[in-house]
Amino acid sequence: MEDSSLNFLRKTFELLNDGGVFDTKEQCDAEKSLVDFRHPHELKQLILFSLTDNIDTQHDDDEIEKLCRDVIKFSVKTNNRNCHNQLFGGLDFYGLAGEWMTSALNTGAYTFEMAPAFTLIEEAVIQKSLQLFGLDDGDGILCPGGSSAIMYGINLARYAKFPSSKLEGNPQGLVMFTSEDAHYSMIKGASFLGIGMQNLIAIKTNEFGQMNVDDLDMKINDAIKRNLKPFLVNATCGTTVLGAFDDLNKIADVCKKYNLWLHVDACLGGSAILSRKRRHLLSGSDRANSISWNPHKTMGVPLQCSIFMVYRKGILHECNSSSANYLFQQDKFYETAYDTGDKSLSCGRKVDAFKFWLMFKKHGERGFEKLIDNAFDMSLYFVDQIKNRDGFEVIFQPQYTNICFFYIPKFMQKKQERDEKFWECISKLAVYVKERMMKNGNLMIGYSPLSSKNLGNFFRMVVTCQPPATRESMDFVLEQIEKIAEDFEFYDK
Amino acid sequence: MEDSSLNFLRKTFELLNDGGVFDTKEQCDAEKSLVDFRHPHELKQLILFSLTDNIDTQHDDDEIEKLCRDVIKFSVKTNNRNCHNQLFGGLDFYGLAGEWMTSALNTGAYTFEMAPAFTLIEEAVIQKSLQLFGLDDGDGILCPGGSSAIMYGINLARYAKFPSSKLEGNPQGLVMFTSEDAHYSMIKGASFLGIGMQNLIAIKTNEFGQMNVDDLDMKINDAIKRNLKPFLVNATCGTTVLGAFDDLNKIADVCKKYNLWLHVDACLGGSAILSRKRRHLLSGSDRANSISWNPHKTMGVPLQCSIFMVYRKGILHECNSSSANYLFQQDKFYETAYDTGDKSLSCGRKVDAFKFWLMFKKHGERGFEKLIDNAFDMSLYFVDQIKNRDGFEVIFQPQYTNICFFYIPKFMQKKQERDEKFWECISKLAVYVKERMMKNGNLMIGYSPLSSKNLGNFFRMVVTCQPPATRESMDFVLEQIEKIAEDFEFYDK
Repeated sequence: MEDSSLNFLRKTFELLNDGGVFDTKEQCDAEKSLVDFRHPHELKQLILFSLTDNIDTQHDDDEIEKLCRDVIKFSVKTNNRNCHNQLFGGLDFYGLAGEWMTSALNTGAYTFEMAPAFTLIEEAVIQKSLQLFGLDDGDGILCPGGSSAIMYGINLARYAKFPSSKLEGNPQGLVMFTSEDAHYSMIKGASFLGIGMQNLIAIKTNEFGQMNVDDLDMKINDAIKRNLKPFLVNATCGTTVLGAFDDLNKIADVCKKYNLWLHVDACLGGSAILSRKRRHLLSGSDRANSISWNPHKTMGVPLQCSIFMVYRKGILHECNSSSANYLFQQDKFYETAYDTGDKSLSCGRKVDAFKFWLMFKKHGERGFEKLIDNAFDMSLYFVDQIKNRDGFEVIFQPQYTNICFFYIPKFMQKKQERDEKFWECISKLAVYVKERMMKNGNLMIGYSPLSSKNLGNFFRMVVTCQPPATRESMDFVLEQIEKIAEDFEFYDK
Repeated sequence: MEDSSLNFLRKTFELLNDGGVFDTKEQCDAEKSLVDFRHPHELKQLILFSLTDNIDTQHDDDEIEKLCRDVIKFSVKTNNRNCHNQLFGGLDFYGLAGEWMTSALNTGAYTFEMAPAFTLIEEAVIQKSLQLFGLDDGDGILCPGGSSAIMYGINLARYAKFPSSKLEGNPQGLVMFTSEDAHYSMIKGASFLGIGMQNLIAIKTNEFGQMNVDDLDMKINDAIKRNLKPFLVNATCGTTVLGAFDDLNKIADVCKKYNLWLHVDACLGGSAILSRKRRHLLSGSDRANSISWNPHKTMGVPLQCSIFMVYRKGILHECNSSSANYLFQQDKFYETAYDTGDKSLSCGRKVDAFKFWLMFKKHGERGFEKLIDNAFDMSLYFVDQIKNRDGFEVIFQPQYTNICFFYIPKFMQKKQERDEKFWECISKLAVYVKERMMKNGNLMIGYSPLSSKNLGNFFRMVVTCQPPATRESMDFVLEQIEKIAEDFEFYDK
């Protein structure tokens, strides 16, 4: 049995390759090449998902192979060049090789004895990240996703201002601040960390989706007057929908004025730090107390790869340690400072650093820069094309590589009045186009409303590093939308 | 470049195979076959970990291959049959194939549109788990590790008793209860969720490491008298060091009496549910409000695979949702109940269900049962051998597959008096043996003190399902300890 199972593992690459998972160029526009969409009830007819009836059933390798081929067939090929649906997309094959090695070596990143090479690799990735963002004397940890990284930031901020909270729990009156366009993990964090969603105070954004710093100042001031306890401002570099960058220097000034912790959520936009032309977007990051950055977005590092950074050494351990003495024994024969686990909120933490480290070794900083600059350049090309085509309009000039736009179908382009019904139609068109795209199976882009700007549905198209976008792949998106919208008929309800 | 990178990926299997990562039988006892240990400063001489100097440096595929071979060489081969160091260990190759496919398909488990097959697979894994533990009408979610799963439990318990806490934050006076031998994530959770470490009340354990239910009752009663707000009892099935199982039925009675949420931390011991002979250990699990279970422990599912279960539908969503409308649009063309992401505290959640599902399809419940029964049988064999060999003593008759024992070296076996110096020597021996094992590189078992039982260091040996333990592999552990201990010299300090 052992040989047979190892043979099955050996076949994994070919199963994926046969299933088109690694295709990045040829046939990427063909129907169903990105997704062969089925509704849940349809998919349940095609694959026997249930596990509840097979107490005695065991499948042989041929049956297991068939199941795998089906799962691959009906999964989204996120590495397809027309996948622009989420803030991640595309795969770096060196990164994937790193991930495969990581999972085969199957260990937890908590002690040096269990993860010697990986511990030093994580240290190297953190050092490099700190250097890039200007927190050279800081510390960091890889954690399972951006939401987790942001919650690490909230936790440290609370501990820094109220060290007794670790032992005694939250003091009453904690409040924190973030822009109304920030990621929803701030909301979830407010609830999860016992602070309460209503104590996360939303700051207005300007017309470009950036935090209004005057509003921030006013609301902090107001909270202090109400005897509340402000402790954190979260600034966003690359908001989820619009890709907007808050002005870190201005926000840092306000944080200094009120002695508040500045967390910079650069989960999305942090990758701009690797481009000499674009890193100005993150200017002021060296004044942050903590930063979250997801190289699994934009850069094609396989999910999950989230880096949490903090400006000073020691505090991660002080804040998070519980000193479990079955794991972090102090009488070990090696230098136990390399046991990083007690800095973490997890115990058995998956190794997420190696894949990124390997990509770094392969591409170097300049290689990443080239990929990132291409993503930016192609986004600008996309915006230029929008401006030159009838019916397309960008909502904002994008600051990052997500582009928000809407399309006015031909039959409405001459209609002058943009009344409620007009916008209702535009909003419904997005849903219609999305459905048709999914069913054609060769293109995915997202759509979203935006309550802070009082906007109904518009398209959000995301350009990532891998596979490198081309003019042709950008044109394809616009052509498809035009074509599908031809069939759209809007009925009043 | 694309072809070359795909070729590199194709080679991953061979790199790992050459490095001995998949060896489970031959040569497993050979020196360095499990780990080629180097101290951090030594390892840094052998591999160039740093990324800070190579802005322009890029490595070609041969150099990248060399780096990978070195990382593999100096990593612990956790799949080696003599790796008994942590609560996980061993790899199921079907599970690993599932993990490789998951990472190649690189998607997030939040919306059906991005993860159609994986969404239904997660649903099937959760359904099966709920059925096994007797929470048939419940709900669940896979989350990044056991600590995370336990914190989901604390969060739901708080919300169930104090629904306004989501919006308003923690009420003052929250207290929760767990045994003094429970996993440290309860402590970290108390701090992280803003409850405070001192408000996690430790309940005494009996001589077998099980929660003293009378002490629990008394301490809840006492808390109520002090006007505190008890909301949760955490019971443990398989404590971290001793592998003890709390009596769920008795604890459920107390929870009923005081109307408290019962979370069952079955991260370690939950796998016993798959064995008809052993599932009695979890008797009463159907009375839990929530359960955490890590199939990545014991069963050889690649890290991470943690399942959180809750007894009733709806509450996960009620408690955790933030209704982000760029991701969980309600006007989608498919049934949005399949968008599971808003039940989660993460946003881009790694898919952890597929690997376990594939193993289930391959082995069936009976296949798992065989593997688990073998782990139990070999643990009992190990204990029998201990009883028959001079100098070895078990600390407790194990309830699960971790065995805690100590060894009295030959030169001390005749000494009758077990005074402070005797125990100091035994404690230091564990450190010495561990160092020598690591340097021989063919065996790893853990050691630990246990403050709740006033014990210095003893060995904790963990038997997992993969690769299946044999009498020979059990004997090897005892022989090695005897042999290494021969060289141990104890000097007074």
